Amino acid sequence: MKKNVLFAQSGGPTTVINGSCYGIIKEAQKYNLKIYAAIYGIEGVFNDNIIDLTDLENDSLEILRYSPSSAFGSCRYNLKEADFGKILEILDKYDIGYFFYIGGNDSMETSNKLASMINKSGLDIKVIGVPKTIDNDLLETHFCPGYGSAAKYVATSIREMALDADVYNKNNITIVEIMGRDSGFLTAAAALAKNDIIDSPDLIYLPEIPFDKESFLEDVEKVYHKKGKVFIAASEGLKDVNGNYAFLRENRADSFGNIQMGGVGKYLEHLIKTNITQKRIKTIEFNILQRCAAHISSKVDNDVAVMVGKDAVKYAMEGNSDMMVSVVKTGNKFTTSLVPLEKVSGEIKSFPKEWIDVKNRWITQEAIDYILPLIQGEAKPIFKNGLPEYIKFYK
Amino acid sequence: MKKNVLFAQSGGPTTVINGSCYGIIKEAQKYNLKIYAAIYGIEGVFNDNIIDLTDLENDSLEILRYSPSSAFGSCRYNLKEADFGKILEILDKYDIGYFFYIGGNDSMETSNKLASMINKSGLDIKVIGVPKTIDNDLLETHFCPGYGSAAKYVATSIREMALDADVYNKNNITIVEIMGRDSGFLTAAAALAKNDIIDSPDLIYLPEIPFDKESFLEDVEKVYHKKGKVFIAASEGLKDVNGNYAFLRENRADSFGNIQMGGVGKYLEHLIKTNITQKRIKTIEFNILQRCAAHISSKVDNDVAVMVGKDAVKYAMEGNSDMMVSVVKTGNKFTTSLVPLEKVSGEIKSFPKEWIDVKNRWITQEAIDYILPLIQGEAKPIFKNGLPEYIKFYK
Repeated sequence: MKKNVLFAQSGGPTTVINGSCYGIIKEAQKYNLKIYAAIYGIEGVFNDNIIDLTDLENDSLEILRYSPSSAFGSCRYNLKEADFGKILEILDKYDIGYFFYIGGNDSMETSNKLASMINKSGLDIKVIGVPKTIDNDLLETHFCPGYGSAAKYVATSIREMALDADVYNKNNITIVEIMGRDSGFLTAAAALAKNDIIDSPDLIYLPEIPFDKESFLEDVEKVYHKKGKVFIAASEGLKDVNGNYAFLRENRADSFGNIQMGGVGKYLEHLIKTNITQKRIKTIEFNILQRCAAHISSKVDNDVAVMVGKDAVKYAMEGNSDMMVSVVKTGNKFTTSLVPLEKVSGEIKSFPKEWIDVKNRWITQEAIDYILPLIQGEAKPIFKNGLPEYIKFYK
Repeated sequence: MKKNVLFAQSGGPTTVINGSCYGIIKEAQKYNLKIYAAIYGIEGVFNDNIIDLTDLENDSLEILRYSPSSAFGSCRYNLKEADFGKILEILDKYDIGYFFYIGGNDSMETSNKLASMINKSGLDIKVIGVPKTIDNDLLETHFCPGYGSAAKYVATSIREMALDADVYNKNNITIVEIMGRDSGFLTAAAALAKNDIIDSPDLIYLPEIPFDKESFLEDVEKVYHKKGKVFIAASEGLKDVNGNYAFLRENRADSFGNIQMGGVGKYLEHLIKTNITQKRIKTIEFNILQRCAAHISSKVDNDVAVMVGKDAVKYAMEGNSDMMVSVVKTGNKFTTSLVPLEKVSGEIKSFPKEWIDVKNRWITQEAIDYILPLIQGEAKPIFKNGLPEYIKFYK
């Protein structure tokens, strides 16, 4: 009787993706199954790079829960038709009955394909997708675990940087470049930094609104004239009316056709320097910190990440397959449901247009009310000798 | 009878400089004095931009203790001979008997000059310098408050970024640029990130050791060949054998002749790209985050910052002047003593040469034993609705 569990992580890391692994392991332990993890995502299955976690000690498990990045490695590998035979062979070899793939839309696409192949093969393996992404761009889920913590990092850091930028009684302009290729959710979180003490950021630019050089310079000029200071939060994915990225540092693409980006901040700095002022402009790129700073994770986000992991196992045990665990919010309570993988795979959820206050380069109160519950509480890692203790299972 | 207290903050912000203000206010409250703060450092005194904090509520005071940056603003103004008349006038106007200046070596120079001028003028005003700087480059003190928290930020973030960088089973090179114009203390803290789980960073470049392009490329090549991955921590202040900065983004200088830097990371990336590999190189600049991320402050650092503030008031009340409060470590306990300002002013403490393992681009165990006690404990800011509450007193 096939009844072992295998899971793998995929795509870009988050600070709570390991929380979902923790959830899967904790729940699977109840069923007295063998628990395996693939190292480096689906590539690890393909390469038979699989470890046995059945006897993982509780101490390690607790450290895993609060460790950032993908403790089992990750991949950005787009499965080819020819790869599936080998993968099914490996799944069979380990008597896998339940496969969990934690990732974003590309990973849900992979999971969906895998489920079809399993179906055709006649094997009895349940496939459940577990959502994660700091971009929050998966359809059919209230939010994606990983987003809450990244949003908390962005809002916290902007609040801190605004205080730093303000400190001299002189004109200054600060530009922050925030991740989000096609979706403005993470950049929108910048709005949360502002309160009655900290009057920043001033302008927020999301990838959902075509970027126009002239109106950008008008916006900046206006604030600079009024306050003498400007704080700009800009998505790395700003595009012009034709859908071309406002600025490309490098024109590389990975195997999914995802373009590796960066450089919007420096581009905006260049625009300001050549058109408004040369003085006191700082550009900060959060870079990978926004997705790996586990020391400032959201408790709600971490708890939900654990929940989607646990519930993925429950759903699979109930016989569900080819589904993604979806987060549901009812009142202030988060629960889960299931959605077919094909409804999610390869699709991108944009930041809702009606949540964007285009004129003021800001977001609506409704948007703020959506984001705030996701950043509540602090999921503190375990500290030892002044530093957080983290774990990983690959070399 | 002159007996009011005035303090001001100067130079680059830290996450615990406000802790020293908290200490000054708390201690001064015991003496039933008027407590004033100058807004924007010594410039605030010169411009009569002074606020009365005598009745500051305890709630605000507690928020102040954990707020990053300089809550009363800062300046990088080098006092001219001609300015002192006006400054003495203002001090006299507010019946100041005790003046506290929180800052780095430039601020200690300013305090020293001011004390001499006061002496010549016949006024009875005690001047005490309170140390702070993330660079840890003040002489005559075990360490500078601000450094412990910045070091904790650097080590924590590198540990997190190393996990992120490692996640794909492919070659990658990560470069982190860390602040420290002339002193390698902060960059050295990168070494603390490494443990038996996280095998990063690999190479640490301090400004105390002349930077040589050829040996840098040899170092990187060697690690890349052996591990397939390289994690580099580099000081922004790397200089060649002739003492010229390895790379200057901009050639500006402030009124103290401090050169505004940045760009070492990108320079090293360029060297690697043109000599070793074009692939998968990430350069991260901590930028202002390393000095303002109060959410990951060190408790020891915050406690000592408060202590030097409190003790500054005590020393002044005892009649001391023209002195800086110095941190003393005896066993595991931190206390304070006094050192003459002239012994500190304008001087820079380098990272000790004997603590550098030049061959391995690393630091000695003695150095690690020095840094570790300074990053212990977490000084968590007050969180409200998912975000830290901070305070500032300038517009």
